[in-house]
Amino acid sequence: MGKKVLIIGGVACGGKTAARLMRIDPEAEVTILEKGEYLSYAGCGLPYYVGGVVKEYKDLMSTPIGVVRDATFFRKVKHVDVHTGHLATKIDRKNHTVTALDVASGEEKKFSYDKLVIAAGASPIRPPIPGADLPRVFTLWNMPDALAMRSAIDSGNVRRAVIIGGGLIGMEVVEALRNHGLEVSVVDLMETPLPTMMEKEFGLYLIKALKTRGVNFYGGEKVQEIVGCGGELSSVRTDKREIPADMVLMAVGVRPNTAIAKDAGLEIGEKGGIIVDAHMRTSDPDIYAGGDCVEAKHLITGERTWQPMGSVANRQGRVIADNIAGIPSTFRGVAGTAIMKAFEYTIGKTGLTKEQAIKEGFDAEAVTIVDADTPHFMPGSAPITIRLVADKKSRKVLGAQVFGPGRADKRLDTLATAVTGGLDVDMLANTDLAYAPPYSTALDPVAHAANALRNKMDGLMKSIGPSELKQKIEGGWEPLLVDVRTPGEVENQGRLPYEFVNIPLGMLWEKARELPKDKDIVTYCKVSVRGWDAYAILSRLGFEKVFVLEGGIAGWPFDLVK
Amino acid sequence: MGKKVLIIGGVACGGKTAARLMRIDPEAEVTILEKGEYLSYAGCGLPYYVGGVVKEYKDLMSTPIGVVRDATFFRKVKHVDVHTGHLATKIDRKNHTVTALDVASGEEKKFSYDKLVIAAGASPIRPPIPGADLPRVFTLWNMPDALAMRSAIDSGNVRRAVIIGGGLIGMEVVEALRNHGLEVSVVDLMETPLPTMMEKEFGLYLIKALKTRGVNFYGGEKVQEIVGCGGELSSVRTDKREIPADMVLMAVGVRPNTAIAKDAGLEIGEKGGIIVDAHMRTSDPDIYAGGDCVEAKHLITGERTWQPMGSVANRQGRVIADNIAGIPSTFRGVAGTAIMKAFEYTIGKTGLTKEQAIKEGFDAEAVTIVDADTPHFMPGSAPITIRLVADKKSRKVLGAQVFGPGRADKRLDTLATAVTGGLDVDMLANTDLAYAPPYSTALDPVAHAANALRNKMDGLMKSIGPSELKQKIEGGWEPLLVDVRTPGEVENQGRLPYEFVNIPLGMLWEKARELPKDKDIVTYCKVSVRGWDAYAILSRLGFEKVFVLEGGIAGWPFDLVK
Repeated sequence: MGKKVLIIGGVACGGKTAARLMRIDPEAEVTILEKGEYLSYAGCGLPYYVGGVVKEYKDLMSTPIGVVRDATFFRKVKHVDVHTGHLATKIDRKNHTVTALDVASGEEKKFSYDKLVIAAGASPIRPPIPGADLPRVFTLWNMPDALAMRSAIDSGNVRRAVIIGGGLIGMEVVEALRNHGLEVSVVDLMETPLPTMMEKEFGLYLIKALKTRGVNFYGGEKVQEIVGCGGELSSVRTDKREIPADMVLMAVGVRPNTAIAKDAGLEIGEKGGIIVDAHMRTSDPDIYAGGDCVEAKHLITGERTWQPMGSVANRQGRVIADNIAGIPSTFRGVAGTAIMKAFEYTIGKTGLTKEQAIKEGFDAEAVTIVDADTPHFMPGSAPITIRLVADKKSRKVLGAQVFGPGRADKRLDTLATAVTGGLDVDMLANTDLAYAPPYSTALDPVAHAANALRNKMDGLMKSIGPSELKQKIEGGWEPLLVDVRTPGEVENQGRLPYEFVNIPLGMLWEKARELPKDKDIVTYCKVSVRGWDAYAILSRLGFEKVFVLEGGIAGWPFDLVK
Repeated sequence: MGKKVLIIGGVACGGKTAARLMRIDPEAEVTILEKGEYLSYAGCGLPYYVGGVVKEYKDLMSTPIGVVRDATFFRKVKHVDVHTGHLATKIDRKNHTVTALDVASGEEKKFSYDKLVIAAGASPIRPPIPGADLPRVFTLWNMPDALAMRSAIDSGNVRRAVIIGGGLIGMEVVEALRNHGLEVSVVDLMETPLPTMMEKEFGLYLIKALKTRGVNFYGGEKVQEIVGCGGELSSVRTDKREIPADMVLMAVGVRPNTAIAKDAGLEIGEKGGIIVDAHMRTSDPDIYAGGDCVEAKHLITGERTWQPMGSVANRQGRVIADNIAGIPSTFRGVAGTAIMKAFEYTIGKTGLTKEQAIKEGFDAEAVTIVDADTPHFMPGSAPITIRLVADKKSRKVLGAQVFGPGRADKRLDTLATAVTGGLDVDMLANTDLAYAPPYSTALDPVAHAANALRNKMDGLMKSIGPSELKQKIEGGWEPLLVDVRTPGEVENQGRLPYEFVNIPLGMLWEKARELPKDKDIVTYCKVSVRGWDAYAILSRLGFEKVFVLEGGIAGWPFDLVK
């Protein structure tokens, strides 16, 4: 007789733990208690089902050959005993039992265990906004949520949608709803979307991109009421406006499901998740926990953080299974990586932002660059923006943010590997990335970013970010802005909303003598590569107060004048 | 007066050195001697010009805003003095001068230097095959080569092309020529393409892929003559066949241009390149060298290797400029990364193959997996194959090979970063890669490969590669092959060319009792994920001699029976 393993939760971490355990521990007897009806589905795929990209909801919970991962599948193929519709309510640590409520019958049942795994996930927060209980006010967290949203959309009675919350889920659903032709607005308390994930400038890039698709982002607004009329949803009222709505998505965040763990006296962390060690063991050696309900160590700060991601849950499930089977695997931590798609745009992050790094005590420096994902002579070449953060002392890469119509996901994975592996910015610049014109430029944008940051850290280049420039100019700074693009570019690409002189780079050597040496100068072009050439030329000519505008016109997150 | 820097060669490394130097060393006076007519062009883009993907050859040597990087550009914008059509013939180290031949006038000129940079590149090998001097027998290395090939194709008199040499350039040109509707055959002395880069199985994948596009690869054949008829090219004759040809591309390799360095007494390495230190300095402290004419340290073996790549040349140019400007930057080495595209297929490598690793003294283990690049429920999801190599002792990732219609370049860059950063396979498996359904599976194929390799190294999974299986069966081994796909899959996807039993995974628990316990068993499915489930089930049931076929049917590089 093998050990009895009981798993609470059968979606990501729970399903993975069971599958791995059955592969490596021939003796284990595994039982899953899942409160819902659906097992092992791709939760991150829900927005794509809502958007009609995924045709059948069953595709989200079937194997690649189309077999649905239901209780029968688990029993037959994996020899795992699954009880769906069973909500675990109480852990008796002394007697090694879990009480569960059979949701359909109301019956209480007891399940015994040698090892218990808590993979109870998280739940969406429903803030107590008046009107939140109106029909067609949704959350999107599990399969029933997605089915309900789709059915509302498919009814044909929905024309205008308001998303409350500009986090990952809210922003992912924008495209899904636009796919169905809905008018979409997003409201968030914070000024820019993805506020805990990205620096403000990247949020502004996303807002700009969404605007081109007819989506309004109302930042810095507080929702005061979801307004109904005759029992029907009619609008969302913020402190600044009223937005007509036939559908509302509440996407203001999620919190870990830890009640059962808390009641059992297991240790809970400051971020609200269950505390586990590197083996994913809770404060009770017979109880493991993983997925959205636990905190994990951050690879850079070493501190406990909460990163509810399907990828993390899967990796943790494997570690739990290993340890139950007697293999002392460890989960090494998370790096804060996240990504999302909105139309043709990709936005993502790994590690820390500069602000976060400084808060954590690092002497952080950062630079923003805009580069092409493939050479300009290849069809489909598109720009990506990278912001790279490193520690000045150790020179280690602390984090990166990416945005692009260009292929930013590829660069983000490279950067996540660098962050995970503890590479310094010099090694990152020297990384032997794969070059051929269909895939990248000879010097990949990642290397370009690393080089720019080295230049900045080593005092070879003085530069200024767009927000800083704007802020300083609004505060009274009066630098001479030198735009070194061609007049045609200035005309077509738009110009900064300040006074500037336009001296195409090829004419700078001659014209420089007309420029004042005692004044601060800011140089830029489309992406500020020529801007840097201009910086170098002016430095050569004895100008000492020159700055490059990082990212140039392409990296300007505010409105341009056209 | 700043130091006089003279650069021999103005394409990749030379151009980069000059550009960087002008940015960071306000005093330097830079002169470039370029033997050809064209400067700073994207050599790796030549096949795309030949193939018509790049419309104008000038696009390959213009800036993103369309300014051609000619001598005037260099002078005007970069303040670099460029002499095209000047072939450097002799270095006088004592007097710090270089003699150059003005190709047009035949005049000899002397240029003095404080610091010299040799960025003389490489040249294609033209083997002494009879008929090699016939018209329409091309090499493809520089801009004039590409212009000549395009002009032959555009003449409309070319219908059948033979490529001699299945290396990177030869294989890249296949697609270029098919774009113009030509019949294309490739002949190589070795049995599979990219023989020095990829393991044989990956070469076989590429052959299979090319066959679907009507391209024949004649491996293991020696070209004996390029046959002409009345002064016109008519065919290529190998030791096995005669292939009609209106055009021949000789792509049997390149060699570093080191004559001038050798004559000057500079140290030359075993691989034929100039020897430089980490600062890219030759054995003469006043002479630097970089790009295709130098050897570089391999990051894993620590030995000198020769990796003529545009990306490497660019990185080295930066290091040279830094050192001349007094910044002691180092070039940390290369990792053997290379990639190419053929139609919808990507094939690439980083680090060492298993064979190469064993040869270098590592106790290497490797595994091959096939996985989807994005979840099966997302449109466009496509398979990629990854072979991952690690050292059993240190568990460090030594190398990887990728192939796919799926997005393999993204994974290769992640793997190249892991190799460059010295990550072990456990850390690679735990790397916090970016997950959202449009970009990857929850457990990225890279993590999947890392996990499979950990399973194999840790004795949790016994597996066998396809070539090994084939070889052993042909040698008399008679394992029981257990195909756990559904009968429909067996029908549609094809079957192995051996006797097997088909037991769909869901029926294996029941049917297993009918299987012999004393016989070797090999399990597999489409990609061998269910194959591994089957392995686990059989292990659970007391079968001890079970092996998983790595990559399953999708990873089988030989012909399947349909």
